[in-house]
Amino acid sequence: MATVEEEELPLVLVHRPPNFNFPFKHRLQTHFRLLDPLDLDPPGSTNSFFSRHSASIRTSAAAGKAFSPDVADLAVALLIDVLRRVSAGFRYVRGGLWTRNGEFPLGFKLGGKRVGIVGLGSIGSEIAKRLESFGCVISYNSRRKKPSVPFPWYKNVYDLAVNSDVLVVCCALTEETRHIVSKDVMISLGKEGVIINVGRGALIDEKELVQLLVRGELRGAGLDVFENEPDVPQELFSLDNVVLSPHCAVATPECFDALEELITANLKAFFSNKPLQSVVEF
Amino acid sequence: MATVEEEELPLVLVHRPPNFNFPFKHRLQTHFRLLDPLDLDPPGSTNSFFSRHSASIRTSAAAGKAFSPDVADLAVALLIDVLRRVSAGFRYVRGGLWTRNGEFPLGFKLGGKRVGIVGLGSIGSEIAKRLESFGCVISYNSRRKKPSVPFPWYKNVYDLAVNSDVLVVCCALTEETRHIVSKDVMISLGKEGVIINVGRGALIDEKELVQLLVRGELRGAGLDVFENEPDVPQELFSLDNVVLSPHCAVATPECFDALEELITANLKAFFSNKPLQSVVEF
Repeated sequence: MATVEEEELPLVLVHRPPNFNFPFKHRLQTHFRLLDPLDLDPPGSTNSFFSRHSASIRTSAAAGKAFSPDVADLAVALLIDVLRRVSAGFRYVRGGLWTRNGEFPLGFKLGGKRVGIVGLGSIGSEIAKRLESFGCVISYNSRRKKPSVPFPWYKNVYDLAVNSDVLVVCCALTEETRHIVSKDVMISLGKEGVIINVGRGALIDEKELVQLLVRGELRGAGLDVFENEPDVPQELFSLDNVVLSPHCAVATPECFDALEELITANLKAFFSNKPLQSVVEF
Repeated sequence: MATVEEEELPLVLVHRPPNFNFPFKHRLQTHFRLLDPLDLDPPGSTNSFFSRHSASIRTSAAAGKAFSPDVADLAVALLIDVLRRVSAGFRYVRGGLWTRNGEFPLGFKLGGKRVGIVGLGSIGSEIAKRLESFGCVISYNSRRKKPSVPFPWYKNVYDLAVNSDVLVVCCALTEETRHIVSKDVMISLGKEGVIINVGRGALIDEKELVQLLVRGELRGAGLDVFENEPDVPQELFSLDNVVLSPHCAVATPECFDALEELITANLKAFFSNKPLQSVVEF
């Protein structure tokens, strides 16, 4: 039974994917009464849950940009890794090949590469800011041209790919963007093209990507996300020019601290009818 | 025997480490007559070589900043890799652990980290420029404070370490800087400290570094250089928080192109008494 004190706390419905165990749940409970459908029996039985609470629900969204820098950092790491062959070099050292075979084959330079960013939201903008400091040349694709952005805009991903050495995929996954990086887009990127995906697996036609990589029709790829996570196409494991990461773009303790702060502030603002610190646009 | 035409080309003495097989040697030979002590018999028998040619030698140095961006790129890659556990995550995927064990443990955020750069020359400056775009807070150590640089300067490496989360080592190796990152310096960096070395192996007391890493008294290390290359201390191979790279900070084809251009231009300027494009200060 809830105590009287708990009853006085604002009621907050938690909407989260089952595998997202947010570490600050207990601390949020000092400010709010949390209703988490995944605590229900059976977990996620939201239909009856929503019908019971529908009358009292007001919607809010608390997420914002807290994760963007971490995702951008990983995108840059994956790109340098693929171009400069950091992971491959590490395996070379670990395997004792440096001693046996001598110098490690050359990698490719980051500076001067034309990087096309698919989706210039908060993550894409953070990626652009970082890659500019490496001397990369940025352009982007998004539904609409962003007037405040100095980079060239391409109306479609195909044109962006034709004019890029690297595609960094970081847009939202919607029905329109599913497989936005199609076989044709990848072919137009060319044999020296590199693909980085820190968005969602299904933004890329993964089967085609694997085929192109296996056949050597792309220079390489750095992938944090996959179509059927945690399953990763086994063909990629033996390719020296592919770097794989277990969907961990968004995952630092400092990031969760920032998120907790933001969510708490947003919810407090929401319940006292003050402006939110961050608003998610749908 | 040299032909008459060759005799008319300016004579250039090549000074290079034995394992640096510069790929544009043949093209340089179209402009200059190269004397490379390593082509002698026995290779490197420079004493007799110098005594034979000493009368005609004028000194020049052609190197400059062509390599700096590549070294800086690798330093940043190593740092993100250690903090965000990119290589460890890759092994997790390759080993099938993502499917078996679920989510990969959290890494650490780059933004906000206090990065102390040991040696703010052209490489250190390029590193600083990049890391600022990630939200890192830069300070540095060098023999003298650099008036044009906005970052805090520390007179010695010990004070720099006390005030840093990360040390990036990229100064020149001299008698004064050998083991500049001593056990004391590393201990003052603290248990959450990270060390990146893209300078020379002997800048760090490697034996002590290995011991501290094995005992968990540092958060991690990213090392491109080692005291006895290509030998790498085997104890490091089993540590998940250490990223190893086979001295490949300076190694992209684009970089060698830039170097060839610079060396050719500098030597031509030198022989026609024009100002050099880049001057190395000793």
